Amino acid sequence: MNTLGQIFKITTFGESHGKAIGVTIDGCPAGLELSETDIQNELDRRRPGQSKITTQRKEADKVEIFSGVFEGMTTGTPISMVIFNEDQRSKDYSHIKDQFRPSHADYTYHVKYGVRDYRGGGRSSARETAARVAAGAVAKQLLAKAGISFQAYVSEVGNIKVDDDYSKLDFSQIEQNIVRCPDAQKADQMVELIDNIRKNRDTIGGIVSCVIKGVPAGLGEPIFDRLHAELGKAMLSINAVKGFEYGSGFEGTKMKGSEHNDAFYQDLAGNIRTATNHSGGIQGGISNGEDIYFKVAFKPVATIMIDQESVDADGNTAIVTGKGRHDPCVVPRAVPIVEAMAALVIADHWLRSKVNRLDQLI
Amino acid sequence: MNTLGQIFKITTFGESHGKAIGVTIDGCPAGLELSETDIQNELDRRRPGQSKITTQRKEADKVEIFSGVFEGMTTGTPISMVIFNEDQRSKDYSHIKDQFRPSHADYTYHVKYGVRDYRGGGRSSARETAARVAAGAVAKQLLAKAGISFQAYVSEVGNIKVDDDYSKLDFSQIEQNIVRCPDAQKADQMVELIDNIRKNRDTIGGIVSCVIKGVPAGLGEPIFDRLHAELGKAMLSINAVKGFEYGSGFEGTKMKGSEHNDAFYQDLAGNIRTATNHSGGIQGGISNGEDIYFKVAFKPVATIMIDQESVDADGNTAIVTGKGRHDPCVVPRAVPIVEAMAALVIADHWLRSKVNRLDQLI
Amino acid sequence: MNTLGQIFKITTFGESHGKAIGVTIDGCPAGLELSETDIQNELDRRRPGQSKITTQRKEADKVEIFSGVFEGMTTGTPISMVIFNEDQRSKDYSHIKDQFRPSHADYTYHVKYGVRDYRGGGRSSARETAARVAAGAVAKQLLAKAGISFQAYVSEVGNIKVDDDYSKLDFSQIEQNIVRCPDAQKADQMVELIDNIRKNRDTIGGIVSCVIKGVPAGLGEPIFDRLHAELGKAMLSINAVKGFEYGSGFEGTKMKGSEHNDAFYQDLAGNIRTATNHSGGIQGGISNGEDIYFKVAFKPVATIMIDQESVDADGNTAIVTGKGRHDPCVVPRAVPIVEAMAALVIADHWLRSKVNRLDQLI
Amino acid sequence: MNTLGQIFKITTFGESHGKAIGVTIDGCPAGLELSETDIQNELDRRRPGQSKITTQRKEADKVEIFSGVFEGMTTGTPISMVIFNEDQRSKDYSHIKDQFRPSHADYTYHVKYGVRDYRGGGRSSARETAARVAAGAVAKQLLAKAGISFQAYVSEVGNIKVDDDYSKLDFSQIEQNIVRCPDAQKADQMVELIDNIRKNRDTIGGIVSCVIKGVPAGLGEPIFDRLHAELGKAMLSINAVKGFEYGSGFEGTKMKGSEHNDAFYQDLAGNIRTATNHSGGIQGGISNGEDIYFKVAFKPVATIMIDQESVDADGNTAIVTGKGRHDPCVVPRAVPIVEAMAALVIADHWLRSKVNRLDQLI
Repeated sequence: MNTLGQIFKITTFGESHGKAIGVTIDGCPAGLELSETDIQNELDRRRPGQSKITTQRKEADKVEIFSGVFEGMTTGTPISMVIFNEDQRSKDYSHIKDQFRPSHADYTYHVKYGVRDYRGGGRSSARETAARVAAGAVAKQLLAKAGISFQAYVSEVGNIKVDDDYSKLDFSQIEQNIVRCPDAQKADQMVELIDNIRKNRDTIGGIVSCVIKGVPAGLGEPIFDRLHAELGKAMLSINAVKGFEYGSGFEGTKMKGSEHNDAFYQDLAGNIRTATNHSGGIQGGISNGEDIYFKVAFKPVATIMIDQESVDADGNTAIVTGKGRHDPCVVPRAVPIVEAMAALVIADHWLRSKVNRLDQLI
Repeated sequence: MNTLGQIFKITTFGESHGKAIGVTIDGCPAGLELSETDIQNELDRRRPGQSKITTQRKEADKVEIFSGVFEGMTTGTPISMVIFNEDQRSKDYSHIKDQFRPSHADYTYHVKYGVRDYRGGGRSSARETAARVAAGAVAKQLLAKAGISFQAYVSEVGNIKVDDDYSKLDFSQIEQNIVRCPDAQKADQMVELIDNIRKNRDTIGGIVSCVIKGVPAGLGEPIFDRLHAELGKAMLSINAVKGFEYGSGFEGTKMKGSEHNDAFYQDLAGNIRTATNHSGGIQGGISNGEDIYFKVAFKPVATIMIDQESVDADGNTAIVTGKGRHDPCVVPRAVPIVEAMAALVIADHWLRSKVNRLDQLI
Repeated sequence: MNTLGQIFKITTFGESHGKAIGVTIDGCPAGLELSETDIQNELDRRRPGQSKITTQRKEADKVEIFSGVFEGMTTGTPISMVIFNEDQRSKDYSHIKDQFRPSHADYTYHVKYGVRDYRGGGRSSARETAARVAAGAVAKQLLAKAGISFQAYVSEVGNIKVDDDYSKLDFSQIEQNIVRCPDAQKADQMVELIDNIRKNRDTIGGIVSCVIKGVPAGLGEPIFDRLHAELGKAMLSINAVKGFEYGSGFEGTKMKGSEHNDAFYQDLAGNIRTATNHSGGIQGGISNGEDIYFKVAFKPVATIMIDQESVDADGNTAIVTGKGRHDPCVVPRAVPIVEAMAALVIADHWLRSKVNRLDQLI
Repeated sequence: MNTLGQIFKITTFGESHGKAIGVTIDGCPAGLELSETDIQNELDRRRPGQSKITTQRKEADKVEIFSGVFEGMTTGTPISMVIFNEDQRSKDYSHIKDQFRPSHADYTYHVKYGVRDYRGGGRSSARETAARVAAGAVAKQLLAKAGISFQAYVSEVGNIKVDDDYSKLDFSQIEQNIVRCPDAQKADQMVELIDNIRKNRDTIGGIVSCVIKGVPAGLGEPIFDRLHAELGKAMLSINAVKGFEYGSGFEGTKMKGSEHNDAFYQDLAGNIRTATNHSGGIQGGISNGEDIYFKVAFKPVATIMIDQESVDADGNTAIVTGKGRHDPCVVPRAVPIVEAMAALVIADHWLRSKVNRLDQLI
């Protein structure tokens, strides 16, 4: 339900306009240095009001650690982190109390639960992802100790697209532009596109790509909890995501086996490597030591500033008017969320991989 | 690990060339009529040797129910089903005992576990999916009582593709051709392509689409266990799958919000419906009563009949020779697997949805 | 780990002297009226400083609901509740920073985690049970709607013991005396005993009994999650508990089958009942509609005001001096905790029982 | 439901008179030597027909490994084990098709599921424990590699009782007598008592004690999954169990803190030990390196050969006649079951303890 993971396990809570949102991490090993600043840095990459192409809401999203850290060190007990809500213009939402916004979760929550906190989308608000980013920051900090790092970036906005071969991109550019794109020229085009969309009171979709480096071979479980299946589920659980692919992805379906197969070889250091990486770093659901690579498709944000036809809870026709302060394109702020979710999955499987072999246990 | 589901829960076991494969279903409600024939029918759609474009292995895949059914009725206790292995040409695999086949799981299992049953890929063999189809048959039988039905089909093989608008397809055609395509003309082209690929000792990928009808609004859980996230994970857990998308999918990222949003209206029967279905039947992770629609990308089968360069466990260069009897394209036999996995996810969430509202519990 | 339950699921967090303790409930049905007052009432039964025979610490244990309740009604989303810590005399604990208090968790946490928050026992403090009582209050409120009620009481302190046949006890007395005993005379003796023990700077153990009324037949799962096994685990998870028995319990082992078996009969209302209740309301792990009855054994509190020999982290001999404000006997304050844990287990199984039969689902 | 454990996880299936019973172990580390003989040895300790004081049913209980073992070694994939049913005198049970045997699960299964396999008690039969013993044999084999061993024994039958201080008992006697008692003289008395009870067509209860040696400090999880809570649940899940206590248990409630506390000291080898072991090897829910010690109370077997009053499904009075071949006292055969359940819990927590500390992971 609101829990993810088997060993490194997170549970989130909170509504957009309630008292607070938060997350409890259960299963983080003891002895990891951790401070609120480590987490705040990641939250600042996600928070609203960063630039002209994101929502203008001003939320500080200041995190507080309630438990699980003592004298700057994790203790192995649950790490609970809370972000109090502020700058809530709940009245912006009174008009949708009895209306179902198109392609939002208003209607489905209404049917499922009978009651709902309609303010700002309540639990279905993307605000909930702040809790994930906080938890992901802990996972990242943990995995850094194992030499594992995460880099997501915006690879497509509308029809503007960077090179599919990420070795040709300059990752140092990513945090240098407000759209988080590793191609400076494409970044400018994307910003311009999003800004135009915004002026037209509309929204646009995009794609976030992610590269994970340093994952040792052996992570992921056979059958249902394959590493890419768990990554896929985690990504698909982010608001507005419509698709996931890894390695060669959908394009790979058009290839022949003789083209698609990744030949093994031994490198000069004696490591077994693959010559190509159509597998995206995962074979049979288990990491093979190559870079893990995947893409996540985000639909255009459902909240637009244009009037739309809809119905109310009684089935009467209603006009939904766009109000509030929203993102014209979600992908720039989705970059840290994708990284966070990836880190949570990898942290869980990194720990799970530690109990696979008797010869490594005694 | 080898378990899927929260309430309707399955656990599979078995290696390709071991004594048997099987599955235990825990959580199927009592009082469902069930026979081995019900399950065998689905298994027959998946089994090898069906046609010239599938592997020529001859396995009867005969299922036996070991428990959980009494006098033709489920009793609420675990339903265990077993398929004994036969026609195992284990010697076909002795050559790969110490070799890693490219883009197979040989290497990753070797690193993860230290030991592995190399015969036929052992646990990583797609043979394991027979157990899923058996379990899925039970889920289908259960959901049929609730008016929910599943129809998957081959929508793409290589570059041959049917209409994206499934309302224009003739689903009655699907089981009429050996490729399981709802467009008879495209089916012929696909069969020809696959047959050519086979003659060239190569393989090709493809896409399976799936439509689920009759799902009531309210299935799926907020946050991590969103219905499409669970479907995505289930699909990505099938051998050879590289991507998943639902509703508008990756194409939807190029749309504007004003184009993508699905307007609500009330139909003549008083039901709240959407005018379009870019949402693919799921909003905020919860079903909205429209058809659920998604696509699954399958890579070309990794086993080809062409020699390939690789390494052995010691890192020495080795030539992997294609032997055995394999599928030139996996999608025709993947159709019942996709349906089975979808049925397992929907069955679980159908049961989970029964405990959401106090007014429906007392 | 820090999570209990399958459908009605709770996760707790927090250390005795950290910023706060709390709990997140996931899976509470929507539509239940709930206020902070409902929860506070139960917390007040558990909080320190109630009487001369409990610890003199003064903690208000004021609960705040952070999420999951909107306009006085649960919404089906996670209910997060937080109690901020106060009146922490952390300096009372500086002397045990490097010492292991006998029969406390200091040593085992030290070995397990390497680091620990030693103040007030950190996570191992019984203070953590406040979070359980808060969650249990919600479970009780839910189950009251189904006519299920919980009554625990102190049945033994040291060698003072009430009648084993609870039909002979006056439950209205329980909250009338500070030891929570349903026999006023025995209550006086218990208070006197505890007060003497306290004056001697020592502690004493006791037994809490619990009766659950109104549980319908059919709750509990075959095999591992039998209702009494789940109740047993929940009770054994409370600090200081050393044993659990239900129905005839340990005494029942001395009986013959012909004496122990509970004969079925049909009562005047047409209900199937049992003439005796050695089964304690549970047969084959499943409730049979009779009262559920069990006992929980609490050891004497480990913190005594008498000097004790021990060792420090380096293995050197150390004298542990009793400091701080502690309970001379834990059972009076354990009564609401036992009820809370029972309510959490029953709530979970009440929901699980709703998906057992197809004829009740369609 | 039918699954136990978090990492070392088992799922059982099967009815007493169905085709087979069995178990799938998921999460056993790869590289453990394992054969059917290893498992059969444990099953032979549990099987019926061993002696004059057990049921005279003759079941070979021959186990077959279906998966997860390759060339005598576990591979990390699910280990599925099956025992085919035989010597089923199902007709012995036709008389109870519509009757509820007193203190059996007939009535509760009837209410919970609507349908049930009444033959031999179906799923509620103690026959199911054979699957647990098979799984426990694997857990024991695994833990033997870590130096952990299990010894259960019959400590009480009716009013005949061995010394509570197990250091005074001779464990080498346990398998030397048919009641599995470590006191030869008491064993004779127990056998005589059981034989008399049997002749009177009645049954009697008893207590099984268990000592686990070699468990390192640090196993068990804070809060809900305390090691003794998990052991308690596992024991309470065995058929006919009515109570569980560890260390000082119920008697400990009568002690003062100053008597009960276990003083720490450093032994000559430099290990931190406790002078007494009222804690039963577990403090704060976590093992402290001392022997783990607990007791399990078994009620008298419900099936007696004496006529009993009951009702049928329609509520009519019915006389239940004792038929079939049953145990007059369950404890001798329960000894290997208690050991098996203990081994399953310890195996799970042994693996869980491997991911607690960052300094042991990198």
